[in-house]
Amino acid sequence: MKKEKVVLAFSGGLDTSFCVKYLSEDCGYNVYTAIANTGGFTDEDLKLIEEKAYKLGAVKHVSLDITQEYYDKSIKYMVFGNVLRNGTYPISVSSERIFQAIATINYAKEIGADYVAHGSTGAGNDQVRFDLTFQILAPGIKILTPTRDMTLTREYEIDYLKKHGYTADFKKMEYSINKGLWGTSIGGKETLKSDQTLPEEAYPSQLTATEEETLTLDFEQGEIAGVNGIKYTDKVAAIQAVEAIASKHAIGRDMHIGDTIIGIKGRVGFEAAAPILIIAAHKMLEKHTLTKWQQYWKDQIGTWYGMFLHEAQYLEPVMRDMEAFLQSSQANVTGRVTIQLKPYHYVLVGIDSEYDLMKSDFGEYGEINKAWSADDVKGFTKILGNQMKIFHSVQSKKK
Amino acid sequence: MKKEKVVLAFSGGLDTSFCVKYLSEDCGYNVYTAIANTGGFTDEDLKLIEEKAYKLGAVKHVSLDITQEYYDKSIKYMVFGNVLRNGTYPISVSSERIFQAIATINYAKEIGADYVAHGSTGAGNDQVRFDLTFQILAPGIKILTPTRDMTLTREYEIDYLKKHGYTADFKKMEYSINKGLWGTSIGGKETLKSDQTLPEEAYPSQLTATEEETLTLDFEQGEIAGVNGIKYTDKVAAIQAVEAIASKHAIGRDMHIGDTIIGIKGRVGFEAAAPILIIAAHKMLEKHTLTKWQQYWKDQIGTWYGMFLHEAQYLEPVMRDMEAFLQSSQANVTGRVTIQLKPYHYVLVGIDSEYDLMKSDFGEYGEINKAWSADDVKGFTKILGNQMKIFHSVQSKKK
Amino acid sequence: MKKEKVVLAFSGGLDTSFCVKYLSEDCGYNVYTAIANTGGFTDEDLKLIEEKAYKLGAVKHVSLDITQEYYDKSIKYMVFGNVLRNGTYPISVSSERIFQAIATINYAKEIGADYVAHGSTGAGNDQVRFDLTFQILAPGIKILTPTRDMTLTREYEIDYLKKHGYTADFKKMEYSINKGLWGTSIGGKETLKSDQTLPEEAYPSQLTATEEETLTLDFEQGEIAGVNGIKYTDKVAAIQAVEAIASKHAIGRDMHIGDTIIGIKGRVGFEAAAPILIIAAHKMLEKHTLTKWQQYWKDQIGTWYGMFLHEAQYLEPVMRDMEAFLQSSQANVTGRVTIQLKPYHYVLVGIDSEYDLMKSDFGEYGEINKAWSADDVKGFTKILGNQMKIFHSVQSKKK
Amino acid sequence: MKKEKVVLAFSGGLDTSFCVKYLSEDCGYNVYTAIANTGGFTDEDLKLIEEKAYKLGAVKHVSLDITQEYYDKSIKYMVFGNVLRNGTYPISVSSERIFQAIATINYAKEIGADYVAHGSTGAGNDQVRFDLTFQILAPGIKILTPTRDMTLTREYEIDYLKKHGYTADFKKMEYSINKGLWGTSIGGKETLKSDQTLPEEAYPSQLTATEEETLTLDFEQGEIAGVNGIKYTDKVAAIQAVEAIASKHAIGRDMHIGDTIIGIKGRVGFEAAAPILIIAAHKMLEKHTLTKWQQYWKDQIGTWYGMFLHEAQYLEPVMRDMEAFLQSSQANVTGRVTIQLKPYHYVLVGIDSEYDLMKSDFGEYGEINKAWSADDVKGFTKILGNQMKIFHSVQSKKK
Repeated sequence: MKKEKVVLAFSGGLDTSFCVKYLSEDCGYNVYTAIANTGGFTDEDLKLIEEKAYKLGAVKHVSLDITQEYYDKSIKYMVFGNVLRNGTYPISVSSERIFQAIATINYAKEIGADYVAHGSTGAGNDQVRFDLTFQILAPGIKILTPTRDMTLTREYEIDYLKKHGYTADFKKMEYSINKGLWGTSIGGKETLKSDQTLPEEAYPSQLTATEEETLTLDFEQGEIAGVNGIKYTDKVAAIQAVEAIASKHAIGRDMHIGDTIIGIKGRVGFEAAAPILIIAAHKMLEKHTLTKWQQYWKDQIGTWYGMFLHEAQYLEPVMRDMEAFLQSSQANVTGRVTIQLKPYHYVLVGIDSEYDLMKSDFGEYGEINKAWSADDVKGFTKILGNQMKIFHSVQSKKK
Repeated sequence: MKKEKVVLAFSGGLDTSFCVKYLSEDCGYNVYTAIANTGGFTDEDLKLIEEKAYKLGAVKHVSLDITQEYYDKSIKYMVFGNVLRNGTYPISVSSERIFQAIATINYAKEIGADYVAHGSTGAGNDQVRFDLTFQILAPGIKILTPTRDMTLTREYEIDYLKKHGYTADFKKMEYSINKGLWGTSIGGKETLKSDQTLPEEAYPSQLTATEEETLTLDFEQGEIAGVNGIKYTDKVAAIQAVEAIASKHAIGRDMHIGDTIIGIKGRVGFEAAAPILIIAAHKMLEKHTLTKWQQYWKDQIGTWYGMFLHEAQYLEPVMRDMEAFLQSSQANVTGRVTIQLKPYHYVLVGIDSEYDLMKSDFGEYGEINKAWSADDVKGFTKILGNQMKIFHSVQSKKK
Repeated sequence: MKKEKVVLAFSGGLDTSFCVKYLSEDCGYNVYTAIANTGGFTDEDLKLIEEKAYKLGAVKHVSLDITQEYYDKSIKYMVFGNVLRNGTYPISVSSERIFQAIATINYAKEIGADYVAHGSTGAGNDQVRFDLTFQILAPGIKILTPTRDMTLTREYEIDYLKKHGYTADFKKMEYSINKGLWGTSIGGKETLKSDQTLPEEAYPSQLTATEEETLTLDFEQGEIAGVNGIKYTDKVAAIQAVEAIASKHAIGRDMHIGDTIIGIKGRVGFEAAAPILIIAAHKMLEKHTLTKWQQYWKDQIGTWYGMFLHEAQYLEPVMRDMEAFLQSSQANVTGRVTIQLKPYHYVLVGIDSEYDLMKSDFGEYGEINKAWSADDVKGFTKILGNQMKIFHSVQSKKK
Repeated sequence: MKKEKVVLAFSGGLDTSFCVKYLSEDCGYNVYTAIANTGGFTDEDLKLIEEKAYKLGAVKHVSLDITQEYYDKSIKYMVFGNVLRNGTYPISVSSERIFQAIATINYAKEIGADYVAHGSTGAGNDQVRFDLTFQILAPGIKILTPTRDMTLTREYEIDYLKKHGYTADFKKMEYSINKGLWGTSIGGKETLKSDQTLPEEAYPSQLTATEEETLTLDFEQGEIAGVNGIKYTDKVAAIQAVEAIASKHAIGRDMHIGDTIIGIKGRVGFEAAAPILIIAAHKMLEKHTLTKWQQYWKDQIGTWYGMFLHEAQYLEPVMRDMEAFLQSSQANVTGRVTIQLKPYHYVLVGIDSEYDLMKSDFGEYGEINKAWSADDVKGFTKILGNQMKIFHSVQSKKK
């Protein structure tokens, strides 16, 4: 009998290593491992992962490079929407998972897999992201999640692998680190309680810059287009350039306290120098180039775009409608933003844009103006207050 | 013939000094000066202002102390709503103006004034705040605004006062500073352009702390109730205590780029150590003690509460409905927040609250849990995805 | 060994009749049946249900009258919020279920039950409402749902009951009817497809009025307080009085196409003369007595209040915050509304209220006014357009 | 000296007739009259208006046919957004005014006019729509509004025209009627008070149909594409066809109580058979073909799109972003809606669409389903309630 095919989303970590062995040896499947790279892995990382896969018994291993797709379909809109979950957290890991899930299931369909597997546990958001995306895009492919179903301990898994002839350095890190193009999340110890924050040494990037530094970011219709005056058509490279400069200043660290998809509170540290700076700069540019109501509506939609992305609803069709709105709103978000990088923090210096609504002939705030008279404002105020005046007049008659 | 009475909102500055003289001498009114103190003035300040008023020819001068009222009717709700306009700016000066206007017009009604006067120019938000509040609360009292109507220069005003026997130090400051209980705004030079920020020396508070410092803030049902373990029933004193500690660390500085009531963009620097820290701490406490949807709705309402307050709509009745919502939402916002104060920035360390929704027996994020099984989450995910699955199934049949 | 206690939410229908027998005979529990009446049952109905319960083998049966509580905690706020799901459907049955679940679980706690049971199937919203409410209010009491778990057919259940010596008239109706204080829902045949509507005879109330009729409804702070000039302190009686009058005109029929909690679309007919008229009248009174922004925010909150109520989230704490908002908003919603009842439809004639914001001295729409001049409106318009003017001026320079 | 050019938005009514005479004879301008037709005028109407213009002394008269533009830029989006102001009123007259203002000012720019004039009074919304649009699109062209500035009576205007040799039938109608492609508004007598509605005879269309009638409307991507099975590529013709059929049933009458731009309440009757039916049908089709969250967001955006359109903010750039959202949302809004027309009301029978999310293999509401098990829903409910359970558990520990 022909062996059935499983595609496994493989990271090289303990859980998915166990899955390769378990699915091939105990279950008798042909295991196809796939790693979808959204920019968090170097070529060297990927080579090591491939070696592990084959060593564990994978029939075939593929690296799916989806960095550009991840930028085009997600990061771009997160910048347009100034998406910071709970006002703090650039949706780092969670947005990547969606695109990794999409790439994995598409690969599974392509090779005609019978099953698709992932190594998420039963207590986090990732299982929902994988399951949901798989089910929507390939209702006919069954999902296998051995580690979730058997609720295994680390020790059991290490032991199992050893018994099956596979040993590797699975030393548990003090902090679990998830590094990606749009930020690094850090969990462990302090993040499991409510009253402490991560110590300096838990952050992957340390303060190494010895001097303050000025950074300029250029935007074209809302997308990053230049860093320190150098033009970038490759947006992924631009983000990496910003990260390289800013992470030396230990910028973009914070703690996210969030509501998970499954309803419990979760706390996670992060460092995300590039996302934090790009979003802050982009938002300041919008304050100058968009109208009040454009900003208001972008906030409304950005909040939900981030919430849905975070909560595994990327394939909800309203997301496409929101993207249309966000894209339209960026027509004038073009210009240069100057930022002063300081130890652990930064200062938004200012912007320069031909679309700056402050740079008008209309008169300046607080100064004598040219475009209207004192009487105009008096009339404006009189009419503006009409409904409140009527309300209070009706009220006062009553008493 | 009996002279008509004018109540003038008097600050002791050039514009309102001109108004006293002009209204009494040129117009022949009895000028009653009033200063409504929302916490920005010391007793000494007030005494000097009173002296100026009488020297300028005021018939009577009063200091109206409305600090407590300002806290009870405005700051409290701004904290409940985590109100930061445009994500940045605690509504400092603009919220004070409303309560100063209310106190002024109530005083005018009390003494049976024929007119009420203010010294705002024709280019800013304040004129709208004064006019609107006056018109709503006392439709029968006419408004006088000599400086707005005549669009006078500083030189003209100084000269006029000198000719009428009044001299004072009206040296124009490089920056115009507005200090209040809920923050200090700083305008001038750099704030008139888009591409520069204020220099270090423009900020009234300078970095004087030589060491990092830990600050704890206690909240009871959303209101500040303790600072560094010391209980405060006087909330105004608590805010001042936080300000005294935090301003030494040069915390809470930023630039606000806003949309004014009259539709133009305005840019203003500010320092507001206490407001920024209190709101940040309060918000983190809410992340732990409120549900996701409570936070969502508080954001919605807080945004509008701030917008309306800023835009002179404090007397719009929907504000009272919003206050009822905000008050109700604070039932569980009780606990201690620890903050690490650093040079120019701060780190939110964590919270301790008996209402902390993270401190439950329900299992922790990312860990094996007690309250549900892997199958429960699988079922959850399956149902959660139903509508998206149907949508994509309908879509795929189409093509 | 002492028998374990089950409290069963009992309606006398086939599914819950089966449950009584099955839980007592096959499972060996002491079955306590409870029916929570939200106004849909007459005394006679309740007596018949009690008889059935004992005949089926219930140890004890109780009728819990929660009509007043249902009004106070739900209908009142649905009127305040003008809650019509999807713009059409007064949340009739679904809001009742919540309060029935609360009463049932409270009774189970009171008598120290080990289990609580309901007869909902696995395909609708009601199971979620019961499960969720039970789990939240009594985490320690286990839930039993034999009919859901065993997915039994009607024939099987009837047969089982017959074998166990119980026969009753379980003739399947052509339409399944759910009658309650806040409306009657009608499902079956046409509602299972998308392209047809219910036939005339499917509606319980038929057109019997032979003449048009004028109806007046009085509201006091948002609550119904009078019908045709007769004062009602008993709000439940007022609703019943409106229903008695209006249902003769066959008013308040429609089809609801909704998104269920479990993500599929559902379609159900309803007739709800009193809810439709009360909400329509209340809303028109608000158009006259509330400001534009009060109405806007009430719509926002009413939409979510209805969604959460419908989707079993009544115990979400944000609901209490919304109730505080809604309550506050009703201060001026007092007055009389006149409605003309016609065959199958109605006309809102007008309102009379001392808080009517149209009845002011401020001048009337479209007429020469007293409170402002043409110049005031010109000034208003000039300033109102400022930001758009700046935007278009910046745009035009570009091209 | 060369005479200055004025372009006057001319309707042939008393106010604008006065303007032609006054501006040419008293002010000495060359008056160019323009009427922008949005579908409310027949060729015959336009010919009569032209004759009047020349008789009154216009140098040149033009009819600008903008019906198609009005559909493409406004009606289309009002249907996409199901725009009914205050839940009742299709934005009939007010949306037309904007496009009339745009056409008028563009014509003025084209011919190099020095002034642009309109005949609106100082008490309504139209003056704001004209002024704002003119100022934004042609800041250099001055606006003249003789009738607003001079607040003239009808008698004065008639008399003035007579003295200047112009007589016409300016009999004041009992009701002022504004007929357009998207509905007819009716003001007068009853609409000036709060407690009465319009009598039968005030409505232009009377009930003439003697039998009920079935109407089908076809939609393609949200736009009307067929009426009773006849395909329409000309959407304006489709709307007129629906109006011709439905107005015989006296459908689409109601009273709008609205908040005007200038803050006072206004009341106006309307009949709008085609708009009401098209929007109702479109909305029902959306209930079947859009997801819950698409509908939610469309409601949010539709509400604001309508508010901005009504309040003269059509040129606000956020409107273009909203149009992008609305356009995107219509991808699947294709299908046929059946409506039963009855005297004074109608019944939405049902829809047929290949995108119908109810027509799925997923199982039906209330029936045994195929796509999930009872255990799945149990798991769903368990997880769905997590946060509420934690909240109530924390609460209960407290007391």
